[in-house]
Amino acid sequence: MALITLLTDFGTADYFVGAVKGVILSSASETRIVDLTHEIPAQDIHAAAFTLLAAYKSFPEGTIHVAVVDPGVGSSRRGICVTAGRQFFVGPDNGIFSYIYERESPVTVFELSNSKYFRDDVSPTFHGRDVFAPVAAALAKGIKPANFGKRINDPVRFAPLAPERAGEGKIVGRIIHIDRFGNCVTNLSPRELTAKMIASGASLRVAGKTISSFRKYFAEQTNKKARVFGIWGSAGFLEIAAANTSAAKLLKVEVGTPVIVRL
Amino acid sequence: MALITLLTDFGTADYFVGAVKGVILSSASETRIVDLTHEIPAQDIHAAAFTLLAAYKSFPEGTIHVAVVDPGVGSSRRGICVTAGRQFFVGPDNGIFSYIYERESPVTVFELSNSKYFRDDVSPTFHGRDVFAPVAAALAKGIKPANFGKRINDPVRFAPLAPERAGEGKIVGRIIHIDRFGNCVTNLSPRELTAKMIASGASLRVAGKTISSFRKYFAEQTNKKARVFGIWGSAGFLEIAAANTSAAKLLKVEVGTPVIVRL
Amino acid sequence: MALITLLTDFGTADYFVGAVKGVILSSASETRIVDLTHEIPAQDIHAAAFTLLAAYKSFPEGTIHVAVVDPGVGSSRRGICVTAGRQFFVGPDNGIFSYIYERESPVTVFELSNSKYFRDDVSPTFHGRDVFAPVAAALAKGIKPANFGKRINDPVRFAPLAPERAGEGKIVGRIIHIDRFGNCVTNLSPRELTAKMIASGASLRVAGKTISSFRKYFAEQTNKKARVFGIWGSAGFLEIAAANTSAAKLLKVEVGTPVIVRL
Repeated sequence: MALITLLTDFGTADYFVGAVKGVILSSASETRIVDLTHEIPAQDIHAAAFTLLAAYKSFPEGTIHVAVVDPGVGSSRRGICVTAGRQFFVGPDNGIFSYIYERESPVTVFELSNSKYFRDDVSPTFHGRDVFAPVAAALAKGIKPANFGKRINDPVRFAPLAPERAGEGKIVGRIIHIDRFGNCVTNLSPRELTAKMIASGASLRVAGKTISSFRKYFAEQTNKKARVFGIWGSAGFLEIAAANTSAAKLLKVEVGTPVIVRL
Repeated sequence: MALITLLTDFGTADYFVGAVKGVILSSASETRIVDLTHEIPAQDIHAAAFTLLAAYKSFPEGTIHVAVVDPGVGSSRRGICVTAGRQFFVGPDNGIFSYIYERESPVTVFELSNSKYFRDDVSPTFHGRDVFAPVAAALAKGIKPANFGKRINDPVRFAPLAPERAGEGKIVGRIIHIDRFGNCVTNLSPRELTAKMIASGASLRVAGKTISSFRKYFAEQTNKKARVFGIWGSAGFLEIAAANTSAAKLLKVEVGTPVIVRL
Repeated sequence: MALITLLTDFGTADYFVGAVKGVILSSASETRIVDLTHEIPAQDIHAAAFTLLAAYKSFPEGTIHVAVVDPGVGSSRRGICVTAGRQFFVGPDNGIFSYIYERESPVTVFELSNSKYFRDDVSPTFHGRDVFAPVAAALAKGIKPANFGKRINDPVRFAPLAPERAGEGKIVGRIIHIDRFGNCVTNLSPRELTAKMIASGASLRVAGKTISSFRKYFAEQTNKKARVFGIWGSAGFLEIAAANTSAAKLLKVEVGTPVIVRL
């Protein structure tokens, strides 16, 4: 049974998500559909790209991820089908799969131009239902990506997720996501901020505050009475968290706020 | 495998939706269940009717749509099972299926009176779980609607969705839905507002403002520097949208606000 | 086909729920997954325990309920697998299954200590994905709970849900949940507040107000012109509701507010 995930900014109050699922199941009735989220902030392609990055490795080979945050819907922006990491990714070519390209190799990208795989009447405002859903259903039924259109080598890519390295070994990261609990996910991985650095007393400078406490788990009792602390999060990045409250609110930070590593 | 959709005002924070699904799967374990939405504003039957209208055509033949926005639950209001457009509709007889009746022909409506198909103890406050879910499960297992009760010819119907035609060809529509992005769905279809009218310079008058720009897709660059524009939406109706913002907030309109077509 | 339900405080905006489902389906691809809710207030174990109590009886034998509201994740708090009422319950040992223990007998509890059933790398902040999801998937594939670890007899339990009985037959209940509509669920069941008591003129005292009207269904027209009334809710408890508005807002009450029965 094929597995399709959905990641959108559609919200769940309207008929949009239901319509997408109806189209998939009309064509590939045995498909299993899983919602990643439909609560991506409207038109926030970067948030979508991060969320997909954090989730896709939990899914089995052959999973078809449909990601639709698509401010350019109906314009000349391309639709694409990506194969990477033994999974498929279907959506607009607007950078939404950037972090998949960054993580996986090889990556193959096909344009979606063969309207044979679209719904009969394609609404210029709802390619999620009329293009991406039927293409995903076709994949679910075993159609090969090469059937959808020609291979392309220039998909839209965001700047790399990895932090900048300023002069003298200074590492400048940033907050890339804030979750429901107010935990601030940074783009710092153990490659940039090593266990050795932390053991040697590395600290973080964020929004005018210094964070020098690190925990292994949220409820850990540490010697330092720090209210805000660093913690390795489940997406593989350092997160900035606070005991029983929102670190984001406490620090007054947002996505994009710089996080400077001090050694 | 049978397909059941759910459309309610239950929200997703409580146990209501889970309980409905549990009852369905207890009886018809092979059924596939799809959420249309559970975020219909509390007791807003009209919003439910619109959302169902916008979604049902995306689903395959034989789909069973369960719609529960039910302020009269437990009272003498009837429960019904509707067959229309080769699909089934189960819910309270309070007008929630009005737009299905308007679109489809023939329509057959059966009252739900045969308690054999209900749960053993029917809560007077939760027919979604105790009446509609088990009836939908019975349909999923192949039970014919005539088994649920007698056929009725007088289901509750709303006034037609179509706009009024005032004197001298004047068309008075209204906003019937506002989506997550602030797009205002009107009840104007291409039957009332034809391509010819738009080409001839038709404009809309809404909340004291005139809208004379029309786009094919959201990101379209038009000559007119209009911030608010008309666009044919994916539900088949004209929508009033704004570039990168909420048209509803910009215009200060709500569901029911008149939309007057000027030729 | 095995059935797994999910109950968390993860929200639906992040990748958390999707990741849990991906892990389950990676291992037990034929499993059906139902969301109870992911909107439990952050870290509110009591709300989770109530919601599970209200929902689990609607599910068939063999259902596997995964409940993750887990402020102690990564600490020494245990993970457990409970068998009760011919169903399974998987989650942290923090009281989340208290009301299941209260309702069901016998109850068997196993600690989750056999890391063979966990993901290879267990994040100290996301046992939902790395411990509970794979354990649930193992159950779905027929693994017996005794394989997960040793049996324990001292799971964490909340104080009983049942109301206190103060002197002279006085019954002191409390509000245990407020739903989307503002209905206030109390812990009073027909065992404490009998039909006879109500017929004899029992009233409720809540937040300085007296409630002496009781309805069978929400839209019931009663002689008393009471705006706020008692009604037996679908979870088996007395609820305090208001006609077409939020009783919680009207009474300015919250979870924990006492509800005193006056005979």
